[in-house]
Amino acid sequence: MSYPSDPILLQEVAPRDGLQIEPVFVPTADKIALIDRLSMLGFSRIEVTSFVSPRAVPALADAAEVLTRIRRAPGVLYVALVPNLRGAMDALRAGADELNMVMSASDTHNRANMRMTGDQSFSMFRDIVREVETNKPSLNGTVATAFGCPFEGDQSEEKVLDIVRHYLDLGCDGITLADTTGMADPRQVERLVLKALDLVGANRLTLHFHNTRGLGLANVLAAYSAGARRFDAALGGLGGCPFAPGASGNICTEDTAAMCERMGIPTGLDLPGLLEVSRTLPALIGHDVPGQTAKAGRVQDLHAPPATLQSASKRKG
Amino acid sequence: MSYPSDPILLQEVAPRDGLQIEPVFVPTADKIALIDRLSMLGFSRIEVTSFVSPRAVPALADAAEVLTRIRRAPGVLYVALVPNLRGAMDALRAGADELNMVMSASDTHNRANMRMTGDQSFSMFRDIVREVETNKPSLNGTVATAFGCPFEGDQSEEKVLDIVRHYLDLGCDGITLADTTGMADPRQVERLVLKALDLVGANRLTLHFHNTRGLGLANVLAAYSAGARRFDAALGGLGGCPFAPGASGNICTEDTAAMCERMGIPTGLDLPGLLEVSRTLPALIGHDVPGQTAKAGRVQDLHAPPATLQSASKRKG
Repeated sequence: MSYPSDPILLQEVAPRDGLQIEPVFVPTADKIALIDRLSMLGFSRIEVTSFVSPRAVPALADAAEVLTRIRRAPGVLYVALVPNLRGAMDALRAGADELNMVMSASDTHNRANMRMTGDQSFSMFRDIVREVETNKPSLNGTVATAFGCPFEGDQSEEKVLDIVRHYLDLGCDGITLADTTGMADPRQVERLVLKALDLVGANRLTLHFHNTRGLGLANVLAAYSAGARRFDAALGGLGGCPFAPGASGNICTEDTAAMCERMGIPTGLDLPGLLEVSRTLPALIGHDVPGQTAKAGRVQDLHAPPATLQSASKRKG
Repeated sequence: MSYPSDPILLQEVAPRDGLQIEPVFVPTADKIALIDRLSMLGFSRIEVTSFVSPRAVPALADAAEVLTRIRRAPGVLYVALVPNLRGAMDALRAGADELNMVMSASDTHNRANMRMTGDQSFSMFRDIVREVETNKPSLNGTVATAFGCPFEGDQSEEKVLDIVRHYLDLGCDGITLADTTGMADPRQVERLVLKALDLVGANRLTLHFHNTRGLGLANVLAAYSAGARRFDAALGGLGGCPFAPGASGNICTEDTAAMCERMGIPTGLDLPGLLEVSRTLPALIGHDVPGQTAKAGRVQDLHAPPATLQSASKRKG
């Protein structure tokens, strides 16, 4: 089959999709320090927070303050997730470069997660587009549960692609297909990515995978081989799924970057820098994180042979 | 690229490669009970133990007793790893159906792990082959560190393939390429598997991957797409690498089987049965295990929507 060698764009989402599920409130200054460090590591896009109700997601109650106070690096687009018109306006006021709008392919999930029907979501998106017209932020449309819903199961590709078309009709600059609870498999990914790429250019399509069942990087490669070039990932593999306590979260930024490095796929990221910042995460959130490369080191980080080795060949044979 | 749909043979190695690194000694009766349960789940090959020195690997000091006392299921080949002639003879006496011989592509690793030079390993293999001729067990030859050595780094493909040829000349029935400390990447896997398949038929070639850096299942798919059909895996993702405390071990049997199930790749395994047995592992070894599907459930194991859902659409929109 042979993999391509085109660059992959990894978009960091740990500050939003990672921290939103954490039971502890990471102090605002620590969030800002984390984002400021990430800004120096080569990302062109960082999803910094979500303008959701502080009652629904207390962990991100400081969204406006975070977005206002981070030190903006040139060339980095700072993204905010917005669940409704009010969130969009707040995000804009706080200086978001891009608004990430979300609806689920699954009606049940959309009602559980966004508390809206599909039609209500579409209507809300139209309101946002109309209201932000003068500010002209970049707009991204995310299809959550695009690879399956934890309540409904499989979702029809036609339904997912209809939402994509809807986002494009609204004038969205980017589209994200999200495997919200880690249900995708590589064959399914290949199939849906090929169809999505008929509607959206590779430079505008993001794949957002979770590693809930261990398939995260296999799905990345399936999507990449099918032509996708943009991927969300979270430092340390932060994030998670409310239905899978103990299971992995988002695909891990530094594990993905390390895989790309070994495969000769450029990411433009500072991998040693990522590992350094990743290793600060357990202290920040109070528990171990799923990322592997921060524990194992990079492949090229070799170890000293055992000291006993000199005499070993004499002992046996 | 499109994945094939040919069956995959998963070979269980948790009792050997999983338990050998555990600091606790799993009682012999528990090991036997575990293997007996695994025997009923559709495996055609289970690596049950290793006839290494009890001083080197105290966790498997009961190798002979385990191999003698397990309840043999028809159609299952019970494999023992043998590090030397003495281990081979002990394994045969205890009733091993197959002997798995090992040497590392890396000289440094072979000396550290087997305490032999490459020539000493080859000479030992010849002794084993000569001694077991009358018993005619199945013989497998494993090339450890085939995708990289934690001391030396990259290994030349020619050296790996030379060892494969050597094993074949000795009359080995099967060949295993082992990524002993999880250093392989999918592009490298594809390249080496294609070359190995020029020497060994797919029905005789096993790939043994570790998930040390999170690439385990991506490497499985790379090898599978390149034509490999046999893979070692450990229940719960047991195992590990002495240089990566906290990192993952072998690729996880049930995660791999679940991926295959979703992709329509037959494995012949009883996935619910695997999950049930996997969930007994933490109690057996005293800590959490890396496998994800046992925590998250299978993709098709759906969840009830939140009870608040009925009134949700009235609240917002």
